[in-house]
Amino acid sequence: MFVMGVDPGLTRCGYGVLEWEGDENRSLHTSSTSTASTSSGAKVVAAGVISTDRDLTLPARLAQLQEEFSQLLKEFVPTVVVVERVVFQTNALTAMAVGQASGIALACAYRAGCQVVEYSANEVKMAVTGYGAADKISVQSMVSNLLKLTVEPKPPDVADALALALCHVFTLPFRKAADRATGIGRRHGM
Amino acid sequence: MFVMGVDPGLTRCGYGVLEWEGDENRSLHTSSTSTASTSSGAKVVAAGVISTDRDLTLPARLAQLQEEFSQLLKEFVPTVVVVERVVFQTNALTAMAVGQASGIALACAYRAGCQVVEYSANEVKMAVTGYGAADKISVQSMVSNLLKLTVEPKPPDVADALALALCHVFTLPFRKAADRATGIGRRHGM
Repeated sequence: MFVMGVDPGLTRCGYGVLEWEGDENRSLHTSSTSTASTSSGAKVVAAGVISTDRDLTLPARLAQLQEEFSQLLKEFVPTVVVVERVVFQTNALTAMAVGQASGIALACAYRAGCQVVEYSANEVKMAVTGYGAADKISVQSMVSNLLKLTVEPKPPDVADALALALCHVFTLPFRKAADRATGIGRRHGM
Repeated sequence: MFVMGVDPGLTRCGYGVLEWEGDENRSLHTSSTSTASTSSGAKVVAAGVISTDRDLTLPARLAQLQEEFSQLLKEFVPTVVVVERVVFQTNALTAMAVGQASGIALACAYRAGCQVVEYSANEVKMAVTGYGAADKISVQSMVSNLLKLTVEPKPPDVADALALALCHVFTLPFRKAADRATGIGRRHGM
């Protein structure tokens, strides 16, 4: 199955698509994109950023993001979309724009029929680097190593998006086991 | 033309549609809904709230909001959609949900071909009540008086949405005159 990570943002919205032979036995997509395998069996299918023009109005930029993100969902048909859970930052204006972008990503992914999961930045860093307060360079480096990339993913938004997808791949078996043990049922509808 | 005000929110997203013979000479929609005329010539065509189920996941609620809001845009085909500009509040979780909802409203309205305008809550209160820090009861009361409603609009989200639309109707001529005087061009692409 395809797992798409999304690091929401208005100026740069990072995305990264991993192909992963998870436990859902869904038939895999074929792709002509060069891939790199990891020990987890996950391969990078695509990664990049959606950028919107700073000269446009806010509604126009959000509409552009919605359109381009919907196109990506149609192109890759991910089973799971993993979006970073937005929290308040010191820069209020940036945080609100990130919130608006995340709202669009969450709604579009859900309406496209994907399973939608959120993780906080700390959860992602913990899963990928083993340290919940890791800096961006550490995340880029670990994502690059884990996915055996020959070039570090840049800008950091791309690394963060791939890290989100990796976080899901790494932690899903544990969460499922925990859910089975507690009988609570699957988190986030999974 | 139809002017739709939107008070974004996840639990309750208020909307209010005014029919207004503005200076754009667009042919008016016909409507079977009972209307109330004001001194400004604006009439209430529809008003209400989109509510999402608290028991659903965040992505599901945002998707529901996107779907129902898109339906409203198709039904009323507003020329202008006026959305409250979101700012940080004391309750961080609520503010982020409002931001996510506003992102969806702004993007959907823009993609539907509407002109999209944002006003802050203070600007709206100033335009409708003459006092930028007016409380919710004052806004409800003034909206009711200005639109000659027999019943005060409730919940406050509905009054706020109608106040947003009224703010646009009241202030558009002044902004256009100011834009002509300064030669800056129309604000918000109008």
